[in-house]
Amino acid sequence: MKLDLKKELTKQWFKNLQEIICKNIEEIEKNKIFFKIKNWSRNKKKDEGGGESRLLENGKVFDKVGVNFSEVYGKFPKELKSKIPGIKKSTDFWASGISIVMHMKNPHVPAMHFNTRYIVTSQGWFGGGMDVTPCIKDNKLKKWLHKNLKIMCDRHNKKYYKNYSKWCDKYFYLQHRQETRGIGGIFFDYKKDNWEKDFSFVKDVGLEFIKIFNEIILKKNKVRWTKTDKENQYIKRGRYVEFNLLYDRGTKFGLQTGGNIEAILMSLPPLAKWK
Amino acid sequence: MKLDLKKELTKQWFKNLQEIICKNIEEIEKNKIFFKIKNWSRNKKKDEGGGESRLLENGKVFDKVGVNFSEVYGKFPKELKSKIPGIKKSTDFWASGISIVMHMKNPHVPAMHFNTRYIVTSQGWFGGGMDVTPCIKDNKLKKWLHKNLKIMCDRHNKKYYKNYSKWCDKYFYLQHRQETRGIGGIFFDYKKDNWEKDFSFVKDVGLEFIKIFNEIILKKNKVRWTKTDKENQYIKRGRYVEFNLLYDRGTKFGLQTGGNIEAILMSLPPLAKWK
Repeated sequence: MKLDLKKELTKQWFKNLQEIICKNIEEIEKNKIFFKIKNWSRNKKKDEGGGESRLLENGKVFDKVGVNFSEVYGKFPKELKSKIPGIKKSTDFWASGISIVMHMKNPHVPAMHFNTRYIVTSQGWFGGGMDVTPCIKDNKLKKWLHKNLKIMCDRHNKKYYKNYSKWCDKYFYLQHRQETRGIGGIFFDYKKDNWEKDFSFVKDVGLEFIKIFNEIILKKNKVRWTKTDKENQYIKRGRYVEFNLLYDRGTKFGLQTGGNIEAILMSLPPLAKWK
Repeated sequence: MKLDLKKELTKQWFKNLQEIICKNIEEIEKNKIFFKIKNWSRNKKKDEGGGESRLLENGKVFDKVGVNFSEVYGKFPKELKSKIPGIKKSTDFWASGISIVMHMKNPHVPAMHFNTRYIVTSQGWFGGGMDVTPCIKDNKLKKWLHKNLKIMCDRHNKKYYKNYSKWCDKYFYLQHRQETRGIGGIFFDYKKDNWEKDFSFVKDVGLEFIKIFNEIILKKNKVRWTKTDKENQYIKRGRYVEFNLLYDRGTKFGLQTGGNIEAILMSLPPLAKWK
């Protein structure tokens, strides 16, 4: 398949997925509160792409949820040369993706994160994943999540679940506190085995995320919570901030490549506390 | 002067300054609320020093203030070899310092930060500074602050104020937002011109900080504030978190050298918001 078509197809998928998920979230909010949409450009002077970031705040179910789509291109900063595959000869790149972080009102509903992307330099690869961060310990939820992710992964390749859930645990780890961010999920990058199969997997990850966040909300949003639960959530959100600013590659990548600050930092919680 | 004596004198100064400033803060709180003191060791198995961190929270004037003293020694991690002067042959180091961050209840009173330290490898040098972060624009305060810092600096060397206030502006800058953290102050590092003179300057910076925070609180703490002022303060504190986790060298240094997490992250505000 021609590269241009691959770009077009992945981009369309990410854009459509953004649309579907936003509608879904607004329905969960009983269509009483809606996303605010902002379009942004990477460069005001020349065309280097941009994105559409959508933000819903202060819902009955969602405290804050950002759903970002972007399609950007141009040249990588030279500092990244050794860090990105396929830019030795030319630093030209193209990238498109969707990225979501949900911070929930009810502390029994975990924070949820999902992202998939397709990046093209002289090579092309997929990356992405999802992970779940409860602030109240819940082993049943952890088991349920991983069972579902395994079933989805197994449809594509029996090795995926083991590899990608391990990668997730390793990636979402707060070294300085020696603790995991949450209960894991899946994470993958530099995926370029077979474009059709990889793309089909990437699409499935998106659909699985929809299923998972809907079921988790259905299960957990009815549970009553106390002031102490909410305080614990604020503290846990502090950890989320620490992870995103100290370690997250997406955040660093975005800040270094002149991405949109608002869109990049949309992953930060509305309110965090430190003791 | 013998190196051991230099270490002893600087360490004693930092420790005494911690004592004085904590007493001062408790007096501002009318001795109705007190610091909680925690001692920590860098290494549980062998003696590599440690520190005493003091935290006061939920005061009438201070929302959260941390006053940390530390004296640590041992070996630098090899990754830092190229970044720290004087550890090519041996990675042995000794460091002592005091570090303070004040997050205030009244949004008209700026957040204030102060730090001084003495570090010894095969070389020895002082570093430190102070800076002020209002969340409500205040040009008069900025002028007043810099006038005072200039007078203090001029007592030691006519070049200090210009150099160190510039260094401060450059250091406390949020690149990704293209904005300064606050209204500046002074910042210096690798200072090893003349030990006696340098130490005398470092002590003066500490005393000046006491004068400055007392006067600012006296001036500003009576001013009435609205809910909107408080909301703006929470947003500004989000920027503070961004700076400390994305850029601050002290934070990175601490996390990389196995410092005490609680003490390092004591600089984070009690509550921060992101829109």
